[in-house]
Amino acid sequence: MVRFDFNGAMKSAIGDQGIDDDELKTMGGPLREVHRLIQERSGAGRQYLGFLDLPFQDDSLIDAIQEEADRLAEAADSHVILGIGGSYLGAKAIFDALCHPFHNLLQPDQRKGRPRLFFEGNAMDPDALSGLKDVLGPFTLNVVSKSGTTLETAIAYRILKSWKPVRSVATTDPESGALRRMAEEWGMTAFGVPGNVGGRYSVLSPVGLLPAAVMGVDIRALLAGARDMAERCQSPDWRDNPAYAYAAIQQLAQRRRWHISVLVCWSKALETFGFWHDQLVAESLGKQGRGRMPLTAVSSRDLHSRGQQWQEGARNMLITNLYVEGFCRDLTVPDDPENRDGLNYVAGTPLSKLQETARLGTNFAYQQAQRPTVGLSVPVLNAHALGQLFYLFELSTVAEGYLMGINPLDQPGVEAYKRFMFALLGREDLEDARRQFGARPAESDRYRV
Amino acid sequence: MVRFDFNGAMKSAIGDQGIDDDELKTMGGPLREVHRLIQERSGAGRQYLGFLDLPFQDDSLIDAIQEEADRLAEAADSHVILGIGGSYLGAKAIFDALCHPFHNLLQPDQRKGRPRLFFEGNAMDPDALSGLKDVLGPFTLNVVSKSGTTLETAIAYRILKSWKPVRSVATTDPESGALRRMAEEWGMTAFGVPGNVGGRYSVLSPVGLLPAAVMGVDIRALLAGARDMAERCQSPDWRDNPAYAYAAIQQLAQRRRWHISVLVCWSKALETFGFWHDQLVAESLGKQGRGRMPLTAVSSRDLHSRGQQWQEGARNMLITNLYVEGFCRDLTVPDDPENRDGLNYVAGTPLSKLQETARLGTNFAYQQAQRPTVGLSVPVLNAHALGQLFYLFELSTVAEGYLMGINPLDQPGVEAYKRFMFALLGREDLEDARRQFGARPAESDRYRV
Repeated sequence: MVRFDFNGAMKSAIGDQGIDDDELKTMGGPLREVHRLIQERSGAGRQYLGFLDLPFQDDSLIDAIQEEADRLAEAADSHVILGIGGSYLGAKAIFDALCHPFHNLLQPDQRKGRPRLFFEGNAMDPDALSGLKDVLGPFTLNVVSKSGTTLETAIAYRILKSWKPVRSVATTDPESGALRRMAEEWGMTAFGVPGNVGGRYSVLSPVGLLPAAVMGVDIRALLAGARDMAERCQSPDWRDNPAYAYAAIQQLAQRRRWHISVLVCWSKALETFGFWHDQLVAESLGKQGRGRMPLTAVSSRDLHSRGQQWQEGARNMLITNLYVEGFCRDLTVPDDPENRDGLNYVAGTPLSKLQETARLGTNFAYQQAQRPTVGLSVPVLNAHALGQLFYLFELSTVAEGYLMGINPLDQPGVEAYKRFMFALLGREDLEDARRQFGARPAESDRYRV
Repeated sequence: MVRFDFNGAMKSAIGDQGIDDDELKTMGGPLREVHRLIQERSGAGRQYLGFLDLPFQDDSLIDAIQEEADRLAEAADSHVILGIGGSYLGAKAIFDALCHPFHNLLQPDQRKGRPRLFFEGNAMDPDALSGLKDVLGPFTLNVVSKSGTTLETAIAYRILKSWKPVRSVATTDPESGALRRMAEEWGMTAFGVPGNVGGRYSVLSPVGLLPAAVMGVDIRALLAGARDMAERCQSPDWRDNPAYAYAAIQQLAQRRRWHISVLVCWSKALETFGFWHDQLVAESLGKQGRGRMPLTAVSSRDLHSRGQQWQEGARNMLITNLYVEGFCRDLTVPDDPENRDGLNYVAGTPLSKLQETARLGTNFAYQQAQRPTVGLSVPVLNAHALGQLFYLFELSTVAEGYLMGINPLDQPGVEAYKRFMFALLGREDLEDARRQFGARPAESDRYRV
């Protein structure tokens, strides 16, 4: 079971910098109101709360996803997923968390019949996409785009179509949009992204589930984990509800101007989960001139790059330690009779134990410096645990947005750059934006070196 | 030539939020003083300014590095680099910037005789290291550690030694330390990290050059680029000196509480360069309760995850756009007679042009929202350009640290967690720290959910 521990952010641990019991008490009322908004689906962005239902999807849909995944895995040894933002980050988080760390370098039999996976269509960078062609071979394709007109993904789709995939599927709007029409006309299998589920909340829909099934991940376990978390999060009392408790602590952190929230993953496999979480937090809460800035790190790796700042830099951050209690495969420090490196005192120690000790030592060092941390622990990193984490963070982010008084389910600011980009590319209906751009203030060579 | 453009941070572009000419003028005097400290090597941390000399290293050393690199490439088709923090980030930045985006998946002939590269010893995560064994085969090894006792690297070295590398080299202190002693006794080739060069400033020493040469990167071009930048940065007048100009703008940004500095890389290949830069900034400037927080992003990819926050979130950041003017390989949007996605108006457009347009449109959208940006442009991403960038950021970071009145060349805070970690692992001389840990405040179940 995922556990949330916020001892390290309290006055009892870090003194005056910390949160106290009186402040905690102030959160009960607002969170009961948030609970009502969520239960009744009456808060801002209510039309996008469909993610709450995803753990309870029909078995028939899960069966269909699994069958299609097996067909794709059978059809070719490489599988390309085209999608950007919420259309790929969840799937890639699952891939990096649950597949072999060098999956694409394994021989086919080591991969147990699952194909190599490539995530593309998430940039317009020609070097990256050109390189793919050199290594791809026969491949299957999954195009993930709600509208089918997301520029990066649509362009990559045009290009990859010309490379002749062995089999193609689409994951898109259930009824409308360019990609749905293409799928219908060409007889391409297409899965639906429910209309009431936004991109960054879609990992437990076919957007994440089909890729997961292609990788060989147990998608029923993923959903069972999410259901277990949904069950725990039925309580209106945040003291029994990890999603609300996490939202409460983050809200109190904002009052202290801990504007940066670092998700420190104590497992390399969780780094991409962190990037998924970055989008969830940045896009849900970063609006109206507010919202904390998420940052993902891996420890102990990044203690050697960012640790100095965490220990002694500006007091504007809250660290969330996300850690697994047990690793799937362990190694032991070998004994060395010569002991040149002086490390024989840890010979025989499992690396998992070293990881744990590094975490305890690091958090105690923060505590000594009156720097706040909270912890989220996972017994072991598997599909069930990952399902819990996805649901926990999604619900918690909505709760936090409601505590802030904003709509955590929209992203109006994403349109701004697109408007000017499309205008500059010559789209006919954007003459206004082109004129606006043309009238921009002159630049000066004095401001160039 | 790398160019720095800060039009987008000025009042003329973004109105009252921006920097004005009077403020720029205030930087001249302090930067002349900074220049004196650097030229005379008389500022804080002066004993670690050796990185300034690295572009001018002896030809004989470069020859020796190249010869060893060729021996390693000849000896096995896989090469493992063990190192953490500054002992791997520069090398990995070079790898990701200049090698094929799928280098390790290429066939040996496509790699022109260069081995596959693996970066390990940068964590204690057993899953990642266990996985390596499944794909490695015969391999050569480069252990990078100044002392030879950095825990993560030393443990990985113990483990990988037992996997019997075909050939091993070390990159370590020129005279002392555990790794130097091992190399001497075992007759292992070892390159020196000059004593006056700190880890995060060491990429142009053998720490970065040997891996670069193993990859087949032209290390003379890398150094020539750094020399060209060193030449440009001889000027005491920041208006001719891109390193000082960048430091000046960042310093003015801090006065405006733009505490987060986002390095937006408009090329996936530059993302790891961004991580190298994260360490440089975080570890050099994050001290005494101050220092900006670096964050790396890739555009247009992350416009779909973080763009909402950049456009409408808290006004606490400055974006640096790092972009290449020309890509090595280009692709063109194919024409589609059916035009289902409505994108025929960009058919025939090179992706490089789309990238540029996305950048212009995005920056104009920020400008409209009075959000500051600066730009660093690189004509094309090659070894010469990368050499310029490394040197530019290193010098600029030192200049910025001196403007702040701190020592940008130390990292005292990194020791704090190590002390407690080693104590908990039972190192004999740390009884004090163990006692301190044992006496920590009790934790409460009330702060757990």
